[in-house]
Amino acid sequence: MSQIDELVRILGTQHVLAGEDAKPYTVDWRGRYSGAALAVAKPGTTDEVAQVVRWCAANNIPMVPQGGNTGLCGGATPDDSGEAVVISLARLNRVRGIDTDNDTMVAEAGCILQAVQQAAREADRLFPLSLAAEGSCTIGGNLATNAGGTQVLRYGNARDLVLGLEVVTAEGEVLHGLRGLRKDNTGYDLRNLYVGSEGTLGIITAASLKLYPLPVASCTALLALESVRDAVTVLSRARKGFGAALTGFELIAGNCLQGVVKCYPQQRIPFEGPSAAMPWYALLELSDSESADHARERFEAVVGDMLEAGLARDAVIAENITQSKALWHLRESIPLSEKEFGKSIKHDVSIPVSLMADFVETTNAALQKKFPGIQHVIFGHLGDGNLHYNVAPGGVYTEEELLSRQYDVYELVHDSVHRFHGSISAEHGVGQLKRDVLPRYKDPVEMALMWRIKQALDPRGLMNPGKVL
Amino acid sequence: MSQIDELVRILGTQHVLAGEDAKPYTVDWRGRYSGAALAVAKPGTTDEVAQVVRWCAANNIPMVPQGGNTGLCGGATPDDSGEAVVISLARLNRVRGIDTDNDTMVAEAGCILQAVQQAAREADRLFPLSLAAEGSCTIGGNLATNAGGTQVLRYGNARDLVLGLEVVTAEGEVLHGLRGLRKDNTGYDLRNLYVGSEGTLGIITAASLKLYPLPVASCTALLALESVRDAVTVLSRARKGFGAALTGFELIAGNCLQGVVKCYPQQRIPFEGPSAAMPWYALLELSDSESADHARERFEAVVGDMLEAGLARDAVIAENITQSKALWHLRESIPLSEKEFGKSIKHDVSIPVSLMADFVETTNAALQKKFPGIQHVIFGHLGDGNLHYNVAPGGVYTEEELLSRQYDVYELVHDSVHRFHGSISAEHGVGQLKRDVLPRYKDPVEMALMWRIKQALDPRGLMNPGKVL
Repeated sequence: MSQIDELVRILGTQHVLAGEDAKPYTVDWRGRYSGAALAVAKPGTTDEVAQVVRWCAANNIPMVPQGGNTGLCGGATPDDSGEAVVISLARLNRVRGIDTDNDTMVAEAGCILQAVQQAAREADRLFPLSLAAEGSCTIGGNLATNAGGTQVLRYGNARDLVLGLEVVTAEGEVLHGLRGLRKDNTGYDLRNLYVGSEGTLGIITAASLKLYPLPVASCTALLALESVRDAVTVLSRARKGFGAALTGFELIAGNCLQGVVKCYPQQRIPFEGPSAAMPWYALLELSDSESADHARERFEAVVGDMLEAGLARDAVIAENITQSKALWHLRESIPLSEKEFGKSIKHDVSIPVSLMADFVETTNAALQKKFPGIQHVIFGHLGDGNLHYNVAPGGVYTEEELLSRQYDVYELVHDSVHRFHGSISAEHGVGQLKRDVLPRYKDPVEMALMWRIKQALDPRGLMNPGKVL
Repeated sequence: MSQIDELVRILGTQHVLAGEDAKPYTVDWRGRYSGAALAVAKPGTTDEVAQVVRWCAANNIPMVPQGGNTGLCGGATPDDSGEAVVISLARLNRVRGIDTDNDTMVAEAGCILQAVQQAAREADRLFPLSLAAEGSCTIGGNLATNAGGTQVLRYGNARDLVLGLEVVTAEGEVLHGLRGLRKDNTGYDLRNLYVGSEGTLGIITAASLKLYPLPVASCTALLALESVRDAVTVLSRARKGFGAALTGFELIAGNCLQGVVKCYPQQRIPFEGPSAAMPWYALLELSDSESADHARERFEAVVGDMLEAGLARDAVIAENITQSKALWHLRESIPLSEKEFGKSIKHDVSIPVSLMADFVETTNAALQKKFPGIQHVIFGHLGDGNLHYNVAPGGVYTEEELLSRQYDVYELVHDSVHRFHGSISAEHGVGQLKRDVLPRYKDPVEMALMWRIKQALDPRGLMNPGKVL
């Protein structure tokens, strides 16, 4: 097979996979999407990426860039034609350098997120991007999908954490843009165009990342709340009271916590009596540049006011790092414990915070009307207006019944999101999953402009075809 | 003149200016650039902007969008052909709404920056963009040029303060993108493409802006320093010690302060003896969510350590708001007091913070070699790596002599910036001023991609021709 021979000539035989060896790269980690590939190319340097791209372009071969293959929308899985080359960035995994005075790090696309965090920590710095897949996702994938996570409230999305990019274009040229500058107004912002474009415009091979000082201490509190409306007021007061020290604000429906302790009996809800069975909870995290005592004192003052005002019905403030971790562990256990409710239909949406309560109320009611007895499983990053609004069979449907109606559920929820000026993909991206529904919700002028950009930067349509657009 | 009649039909006679009335719009505020216009169109609504653009496009007439006309690079001034229509956004000056729970404001492009700040303050919120021209520049111009200013260290550049845009495209279509979402991963980031493109891709007509809680208190300190190297270490310690409470870090050369007190004898340098004649100073600002006392205590602790370590030779911490303002006033008086040194050649550059000391040393030495006795006038936002590196006649050159060599000075300084991996335009943009030198310093692959974007979004080249590219 001469085509693969050419790739082997560029990369060496051990870095070109086909047949069975290629399989793990042609199916996503949840097994929801599967395809086939002509080959999997594993370049070890930016120049090799460029050579592979030039060879694919010359031979009209579609390319599917892949990082840790942890995406949730099928953005890194080839179609089933078997014509595409999967370009895995896994071997581009060096931290090229850390500049502590400039608070920047240059990392290659294939660096595992956790390794990036760790390298920063060893230099007494924080790289704040943090999400469930951090042990296996790559920074290149994080940037290509503009990943979110739990620290967005304070530090922003992946796009806000990058100063410059090295990119291999659709023609196989190298854009040398690894600037470490916080101010640079010399032309169009190509960086933000590649970030979030899911490999459809070019391949990110390295990034210049922002670092922050490590907080001296952090502290966590869990508040028991009566309503989403109260949660929104609590958020507003917390932003005022804590300023930028507020680094996390998670909203959790009561049934999610019940699900966690049912699934993991060694965990417990840290309240007694009625406070243990409230409809909503909020998890707040403070990062402090003074001390753990100071963080706790701040919590006591501000949360004390919220209790007094009747906004929070009860509150637990962690007394030490172990208790803080136990509270976060409750939150982090939700996704896996969701199986207690049966296989659910998941939505990753964002809504203006001010409309959140109305959105939840209206959407819940509409779902109940159409699917009586269905169960809502709702949690998310309220500080960013981001909800994981999931829908489970409850006691009244079988998983199969619900699954057979999943497109009805999607449409109902996404239509509602749209009416509340929200986004149908807050942090997971578009990929294959939401490509076809995008035009239903996106401004047609914006869709047309996106097509023009695609045409301008990838005129032959070889970069990750079938994704986003 | 039938062409203008058409514009009059769209906008009404009082909103189309020609002849003498058009003059103020065809010259920049410093009188450095002047041109001529077929007419000045002053639409009052987004729809009128779209109508004007469609009419211009249909008649092949170039368009020059203009906000407060306060730019420093000639980006809003038409060329002298007299063929272009200047589209002033001044009448689009409504704040369309403020959403305090969502911490967002929708403002039209022609809103004066100070009015945006004021509207936020009235809603008990902060809109943090702040710069010298805030009394007359517009938010549309701030976004079109990605303005910087004094709060970038904490809050970022203009691009970091916008969540969504309404844009009239080069064809006169309206992109309805006024989203108020902190997370939205549904396709390419068009927003950041228009931000900083200086009106060459389309016209921003309104923006959804991020608001922040108003700090409870702020406090300012002035530190006397021996070297830029010490300033960089002080910055690093301040970031660690204060976290996100550090909202300003300005570097000021000693001769700049001397210039201020010479020019404005009612001002004084708040030190005695040798501390009043140090080569460098740093102005630090803390914004606190607790109290003025707390801010001062934090300053005392962290700055105390710096004094003990010999990093700072002396320090003044403001005891009240009046003293804080007096310290900031010193910094803000520098640009106008520069006349004490004679008409200077100005550079708005950024450098990785870690290379700042070497850059200043090397560039100063190279300038002295080529122009013996020339005077360096250096100040800027060290926290963002942004220097206003200005060069004055000193005692040895006449203003005319220096002016006649200005391109030699530009080239020497910009070449040095380039060698130190910096940017030749940190916050002022490109406009006409730096358009022709851009290809000298920019990656050719990046320049080619910028041209492709321009071609894709403004294929007929009618949007602000002759600027940026």
